[in-house]
Amino acid sequence: MPDKPVSKDRELERIGVAIDRSLLDKFDELIARRGYANRSEAFRDLIRAELVGDTASQPHGLVTGTITLLYDHHVRMVGEKLTALQHHYHRQILSTLHLHLDHDNCLEVIVVKGEAAGVRQLADKLIAERGVKHGRLVLSGTGPEF
Amino acid sequence: MPDKPVSKDRELERIGVAIDRSLLDKFDELIARRGYANRSEAFRDLIRAELVGDTASQPHGLVTGTITLLYDHHVRMVGEKLTALQHHYHRQILSTLHLHLDHDNCLEVIVVKGEAAGVRQLADKLIAERGVKHGRLVLSGTGPEF
Amino acid sequence: MPDKPVSKDRELERIGVAIDRSLLDKFDELIARRGYANRSEAFRDLIRAELVGDTASQPHGLVTGTITLLYDHHVRMVGEKLTALQHHYHRQILSTLHLHLDHDNCLEVIVVKGEAAGVRQLADKLIAERGVKHGRLVLSGTGPEF
Amino acid sequence: MPDKPVSKDRELERIGVAIDRSLLDKFDELIARRGYANRSEAFRDLIRAELVGDTASQPHGLVTGTITLLYDHHVRMVGEKLTALQHHYHRQILSTLHLHLDHDNCLEVIVVKGEAAGVRQLADKLIAERGVKHGRLVLSGTGPEF
Repeated sequence: MPDKPVSKDRELERIGVAIDRSLLDKFDELIARRGYANRSEAFRDLIRAELVGDTASQPHGLVTGTITLLYDHHVRMVGEKLTALQHHYHRQILSTLHLHLDHDNCLEVIVVKGEAAGVRQLADKLIAERGVKHGRLVLSGTGPEF
Repeated sequence: MPDKPVSKDRELERIGVAIDRSLLDKFDELIARRGYANRSEAFRDLIRAELVGDTASQPHGLVTGTITLLYDHHVRMVGEKLTALQHHYHRQILSTLHLHLDHDNCLEVIVVKGEAAGVRQLADKLIAERGVKHGRLVLSGTGPEF
Repeated sequence: MPDKPVSKDRELERIGVAIDRSLLDKFDELIARRGYANRSEAFRDLIRAELVGDTASQPHGLVTGTITLLYDHHVRMVGEKLTALQHHYHRQILSTLHLHLDHDNCLEVIVVKGEAAGVRQLADKLIAERGVKHGRLVLSGTGPEF
Repeated sequence: MPDKPVSKDRELERIGVAIDRSLLDKFDELIARRGYANRSEAFRDLIRAELVGDTASQPHGLVTGTITLLYDHHVRMVGEKLTALQHHYHRQILSTLHLHLDHDNCLEVIVVKGEAAGVRQLADKLIAERGVKHGRLVLSGTGPEF
């Protein structure tokens, strides 16, 4: 249980769930392998993953996200263009982490927050830049919703 | 509860799960929207979807699957080639459903069963055929495992 | 080339694409492994897969789809309920294939056509039925759009 | 073209691709919307995305990745446990970015590099930690392979 003053919303409720014995055994095996300490934590994660998927499917759903870009910094102006795009969308960008993978390649990880459709549009534009070899957007929740 | 003689494995066990009140409210809203009659059924579906994903990620995991192919039957020999491939892999193919979508386009749905890696290889080959415009493989369980 | 009277739209155009030598080698290796006869076919498939993904992300995008359901036919009324749902949504359902996997388990594959949001809603309801152990929806194009 | 001394591998080769006129029009519309300057860049991105997917599907495929964790830092020991796990797997972890989203919630983005199976295992363990509300792993290439 959280070691903080617990609000009504955060109160853990204990519910009963009916599951076939054999199904439960397989689930227990799976979550042990993944490192879960107990079933309730695994169930809560499954629920939250469903909720994030549902929110992310709605254009106006509020999400955080991570855009991961692999790019070759030698390609003419790619750094400048990625920076310009990020400034243009600065209201959606929370932070950026940059890694020099090797002599040629950079990994840039951009943390974003905003409506799902806007965040996707920003990711599309960044990934489309010349010099960006590969890019992926992954969405998460914003936190207080669960 | 199933209206059949229930084996030990199929016996429903009632377990307790601890969930934050607000998270539970959001989950209840989501599953009501999707048409679930009760939480236990939704939890069991979440578990089974995780188990299917886990099995499907293992090359030798035993799965059933559906390969959906959209193709233009006018393209030279495409029908013959799809049939020949299916006969070659007949041990993995359970059944095939064919639809004439319009004058040009067919949808062929091939139900397969076997090890995940083999089923993926068959899907790759079918999708790669000239004339096949789009194809997708989706995996499920075989049944008795849950 | 298609062995039919070719409309203007279906005319194959030859375009030039600039690709790094090493990238091309890796692509050639990948598509050979998947069974493609030539690069153009592989490129066209990549394009169509992107277009299907784009259409499927729009609520009113017109798609075909396959809903794969694994269910235990012993569960009370599940067959009747799945049939009733399918009749209610008969305008979206093109065809249904049913397989008896074993003594207990059925695989039902339902081919649908309609707007992406409606098709997803139908899939949600079918998957939520009690007795349905696992379900997946996969979307494709309708054919004439590419 | 890259403004650097170009190695043989990096030389751009010009290949011909045959595509139906109507399919090409739709592709041009899609990539313009996503912000691509030209078709070749879009084709190269499609190829690299396929190659990353292929590598990521092989347990020993070498990848970089980003693990995005949303967690409640009030939950007892969660920060310590995440740090301990990261130290245990320090050989796979390149860098970590931490954001304080609000009073309760943190977003931690961990950049990893290694074999796909090992990276997935690390992500599973981090996501399974109590206090971690949601987590996602996304994989990319390492750079020099394309």
